[in-house]
Amino acid sequence: MVSTFELEIVNSTNKKEKPSQDQVPFGTIFTDHMLTMEYSSDQGWHEPKITPYAPITLDPAAMIFHYGQTVFEGMKAYRTEDGRVLLFRPEKNFERLNLSSERLSIPPVDEKLMLEYLTKLIELEKDWVPSTPGTSLYIRPFIISTEANLAVAPAQSYKFMVILSPVGSYFPGGMKPVIIHVEDQFTRAVKGGTGMAKTAGNYSSGYQAQAQAKQAGNADVLWLDGVEKKYIEEVGSMNIFFKIDGEVLTPELNGSILKGITRTSIIELLNSWGIPVTERKISIQEIYQAFADGKIEEVFGTGTAAVISPVGELNWQGRKMVVNNHEIGELSQKLYDTITSIQTGKVEDALGWTVEVK
Amino acid sequence: MVSTFELEIVNSTNKKEKPSQDQVPFGTIFTDHMLTMEYSSDQGWHEPKITPYAPITLDPAAMIFHYGQTVFEGMKAYRTEDGRVLLFRPEKNFERLNLSSERLSIPPVDEKLMLEYLTKLIELEKDWVPSTPGTSLYIRPFIISTEANLAVAPAQSYKFMVILSPVGSYFPGGMKPVIIHVEDQFTRAVKGGTGMAKTAGNYSSGYQAQAQAKQAGNADVLWLDGVEKKYIEEVGSMNIFFKIDGEVLTPELNGSILKGITRTSIIELLNSWGIPVTERKISIQEIYQAFADGKIEEVFGTGTAAVISPVGELNWQGRKMVVNNHEIGELSQKLYDTITSIQTGKVEDALGWTVEVK
Repeated sequence: MVSTFELEIVNSTNKKEKPSQDQVPFGTIFTDHMLTMEYSSDQGWHEPKITPYAPITLDPAAMIFHYGQTVFEGMKAYRTEDGRVLLFRPEKNFERLNLSSERLSIPPVDEKLMLEYLTKLIELEKDWVPSTPGTSLYIRPFIISTEANLAVAPAQSYKFMVILSPVGSYFPGGMKPVIIHVEDQFTRAVKGGTGMAKTAGNYSSGYQAQAQAKQAGNADVLWLDGVEKKYIEEVGSMNIFFKIDGEVLTPELNGSILKGITRTSIIELLNSWGIPVTERKISIQEIYQAFADGKIEEVFGTGTAAVISPVGELNWQGRKMVVNNHEIGELSQKLYDTITSIQTGKVEDALGWTVEVK
Repeated sequence: MVSTFELEIVNSTNKKEKPSQDQVPFGTIFTDHMLTMEYSSDQGWHEPKITPYAPITLDPAAMIFHYGQTVFEGMKAYRTEDGRVLLFRPEKNFERLNLSSERLSIPPVDEKLMLEYLTKLIELEKDWVPSTPGTSLYIRPFIISTEANLAVAPAQSYKFMVILSPVGSYFPGGMKPVIIHVEDQFTRAVKGGTGMAKTAGNYSSGYQAQAQAKQAGNADVLWLDGVEKKYIEEVGSMNIFFKIDGEVLTPELNGSILKGITRTSIIELLNSWGIPVTERKISIQEIYQAFADGKIEEVFGTGTAAVISPVGELNWQGRKMVVNNHEIGELSQKLYDTITSIQTGKVEDALGWTVEVK
C-alpha cells in the first residue's frame, strides 16, 4: 500500500488520439493523465496522485462555487529540435502559486515537491509535447476550495490539480501587432485587492470590458490603475513594456499588477544585454505625450501564452496612437526570438532558465 | 417524456434525518432535493430539474475553476406561527441575480420562471423549514460556468442551481452588538470593478482582512472605498446604516456597493414610518467627528443572514468609537422586530413583501 504522502501513479489504459499539432484551439484538448492532491486541516496536503484525466465530483455547496477561493498558474513544456522536453523557470510558477495562495488564505504547497510531481507527470505525457515551431504543452496547476459549507470563511479542504493541454502557435500566421483599447471605465484591480494574485475572479471581471473593446475593433484592453485611471497596469492578461526614446520602461509592481515570469525574464535578459529597464509608474498621459512627440518606438505585451505580443496601436479616449507603423519592433522581435530559442533549446541557456524533463 | 424546457421532478427515495433546529451551524446541512438547469449557447437555459441533492461532476477544465465566472444569491423561507411558509421579496433576488450575471457576462435567467421553480422546490421541502424563533430555511441560488476550456473568455455553457439549508438563529443568545475594524489596507471593491455584483471573487478576497481583524478582537471589517480609503462602503458582507443626531444615513449605491434587499426594505420601511433616509457618500472622518461630538446614536449592518446586526464599536487607526454604550439601539431593535415579524407573518404585511408557498 502506498503511504498517503507518497505519489501514486495509475496509468490510463485508454489512451486518447493526439490532435493535429497545428490546429489545436487553446485549452480544449487535454492529455491522458492529471495530477491531484488533497488538503484537509488535519492531514495537510496529502494523497498526491497521477491518474487518468477524468471529471471531478464536488458537493454543490463546495466553497469554490460560492466564494471563489482558488488560485492557478500557467506554464509550458517545450520540445527541442533534438526531441528533448524543457520547462521554463517552473520554480517561479510554484513560488507565485504560493504567493497567490497567501492572498486568498489558501495553505501553501511544497514548491520543490510540486515541481517533482509535475516532472513525473510530464515524463508520463512526454509524447503529448508537440514539436511544430510555436507549439507547446500548456500546463495548468490550480487549487480549489472543496469544503461543502456556505459560511463566508476560508475552507478546511482543498484540491490541487495539474492538467495539461497541447497548444498550437499563438501566432499561427506569424507574430502580428495588435490594436488595444485603453480602458478607462472598467477596473481590473486596485491597491489592497487581489491584482497581484493569479486568482479566478480577476479574469471573469474583465470580460465585459474586453467584449466592448473587441466590438470596437480592438484585440484587448490596456488596464489603468483603479484609483486614478491614470497609470498603466497590464494589457489583457499580460504585462506591458514600452521603448521610448531608447529607454525600456514597464510599470512597477504595485500590488495590483501580476508579477509575470516572462516580465521578470525580459528584464533580466535586457540587463544581461546591457540594456537597463526602468520599472516605475507610467501614466497614459505620458505615453500620449511621447506618441505626440514621435518618441514611442515599441510597445509589447509579455506573457506565457504569447511570450511577446507587439502592440501596433493604442486607442485612448478617441485618440489613436499608432506604434512603429503597425510593424514589429526590432527589440520585440529580438526578445521573442531569444526567449523562444532558450525555451526550445536552440541557443545556449546561459541564464540557467530551463529544466529538462528526462 | 418531459420536454427539455419543462420542469422535471425526481423525488428522493432516501430522505435525510432533519437536524435539531437550534444547533445547526450555518450552511453545512442540506435538504433532500436541489434544483438544476443547464445553459448551452444553442439551447439557451433548458432541462430544469428538481432531483435528489447530490454531488455534481465537472471537467477539471470547467471555466468556474479557472476564471471565476459565477454569481449567486442568498434568501430565506420562514415558518409562520400557524405553520405557513413565507418567502421575503424573492423577486428582488432573481432581479439582482440577473444584474450580477450581466456584470459577469453570464446569460440572464427568466426571473418569473425561476421564482416558480423555486416555489415548487420549497413546496417539496416544506418540512425542512424550521419553526423555532430566529430559524429559517436558507436558499442559495447560483450559476457556474461549466464549459471545459482554458481560453480567457465567457463560457458557452452554465449550470444554474438552487440548494437549501436549514439555519439556526443568527443570534442564538439574542441580538448582540459587534466590534468592527475599519479596514484601511485591504480593498473589497472599486469603481469599475465587480462590487455591485454578488460574485464569488468578492468574498474570498476579503478573508485576509477579516482574519487580521478577528485576530485583533473584532467580529468583522468595515470596508472603505478602494480609491481614497475615505468613504464607507459595507460592513463584512452587509450594508451599513448610521443614526446620527436624529438622521438616518447609509452610503449611496456607487457601483462598488451591493444593493442589499434588506437595505432597500429598511429604507422603504423607514420612509413608511415618516423617517427619511439619506443615501450619500459618508466619510469615515465624518463618522469620527460625529462620534467625537457625541452625536452617533446607532450603527447597524443589514443583510439576509442577520436582518439587523448592531455595531457596538468601530476601531479606526487605533481610535475606538463606542456606539450607544455597546447596547442595541431603539431603532435597530424596532427595525429588527418589524422585519422579522413581517417575514414570519406575525404582523400584517402592509407593504406586500411576502410570498406564501402553498
